[in-house]
Amino acid sequence: MRELVQKSSCIFFFLVISWSALAQTKTIKPNEPCKHIVLYYHDILFNGTNVANATSAKAANATKLGDFNFGMLVVFDDPITEDHHLLSPPIARAQGFYFYDMKDTYNAWFAYTLLFNSSEHKGTLNIMGADMMGEETRDLSVVGGTGDFFMARGIATFRTDTFQALL
Amino acid sequence: MRELVQKSSCIFFFLVISWSALAQTKTIKPNEPCKHIVLYYHDILFNGTNVANATSAKAANATKLGDFNFGMLVVFDDPITEDHHLLSPPIARAQGFYFYDMKDTYNAWFAYTLLFNSSEHKGTLNIMGADMMGEETRDLSVVGGTGDFFMARGIATFRTDTFQALL
Amino acid sequence: MRELVQKSSCIFFFLVISWSALAQTKTIKPNEPCKHIVLYYHDILFNGTNVANATSAKAANATKLGDFNFGMLVVFDDPITEDHHLLSPPIARAQGFYFYDMKDTYNAWFAYTLLFNSSEHKGTLNIMGADMMGEETRDLSVVGGTGDFFMARGIATFRTDTFQALL
Repeated sequence: MRELVQKSSCIFFFLVISWSALAQTKTIKPNEPCKHIVLYYHDILFNGTNVANATSAKAANATKLGDFNFGMLVVFDDPITEDHHLLSPPIARAQGFYFYDMKDTYNAWFAYTLLFNSSEHKGTLNIMGADMMGEETRDLSVVGGTGDFFMARGIATFRTDTFQALL
Repeated sequence: MRELVQKSSCIFFFLVISWSALAQTKTIKPNEPCKHIVLYYHDILFNGTNVANATSAKAANATKLGDFNFGMLVVFDDPITEDHHLLSPPIARAQGFYFYDMKDTYNAWFAYTLLFNSSEHKGTLNIMGADMMGEETRDLSVVGGTGDFFMARGIATFRTDTFQALL
Repeated sequence: MRELVQKSSCIFFFLVISWSALAQTKTIKPNEPCKHIVLYYHDILFNGTNVANATSAKAANATKLGDFNFGMLVVFDDPITEDHHLLSPPIARAQGFYFYDMKDTYNAWFAYTLLFNSSEHKGTLNIMGADMMGEETRDLSVVGGTGDFFMARGIATFRTDTFQALL
């Protein structure tokens, strides 16, 4: 798996985001403080040749601490869709970074922004936290938001949908 | 522009920060929950020789994904002033990092701390979010604060004041 | 000291974390909004050979801007204990990164997650902010939490306990 990750890969995350917000728009009502949205996140790592398709790239290589990419840092600008089809029309983008941070298994840490610019939502959600990849679901924090998501706080739950090597 | 960014550059940001805080000091009143401050942020990238003037440096080089520095990561310790003159007395420092994260245009992502240590303000504001450089103004999240800014939350609005190459 | 930091080092931080949370569990009561916990954080930097002991590794090398490791970025997965003995049973892990960011002294910036998975606490706290190493105590922000720490916000206070080179 390490080779695949280092060469080229496509990871699909399933995100459930719950938040409370202060904004008053037609889509977020203050008397219904907790909102949910389900998103699919598609990450295709740059392998040196797939410029057209790649949505992320290694900014720092893995260290030699263990065999699970410890320290490898990836910057991404990933399309977000409402279903798990990569080619569905994106409803948002996820821009930020993650790195691997365990020496005895795959485990990652994320900080990123979800950017919405559609008729339904305009604004951003800022998210950070650990992605304990060995768990079926992992909770990160929504630490802030702007626009329709003004002052949002909440939880982003990751679930890996599929992981595949691109050959 | 890419060459300029990679060689040496000086970017001035205009920041409007709005926040609500819990602290009770003479400068932040709980019955006026939303405060505003306007700051100017000066960033001079290290080019290998300008140690005396530089306030930031590349920790990771750009990748080959596109032509807009995708993955280039910059650590900074920038002076913050109340007006747009670089040599005005700093009223704070901005310490953190940004990286470029789009393959078809310049776009960045920031996480940093504003450190105040003056007679007017003591404490920090912690900020993160996407800097969509193509927009005239960009909103990031104030995700926390300490000291006078204890438990602050809010919005930091970026506006690029000037961008110039240093020859 | 720079040599020590670049070769191998062991840093012990003393953390006092105060937070307010929304969760209702036996350990966090909503009518006692502010909670405190004292933790010890042990960081052993990978030097190329200490794979068994190391808990962190350099993902990006220091730049040449000054003599204090400006831009050096370290990813960590550190054990957290209730006292300052490295070999005490860990009660949590701290996963994230820091980098050095001043050219005229040692100064760092952190973003990380505290992961608890014990009978007493299950969940995470997400923390970010500047670590002004020259100050006796430094306050960072608790910007979010999950599980028992659902929606937590607060302050994490760093104090350096001991710093030692590993020979």
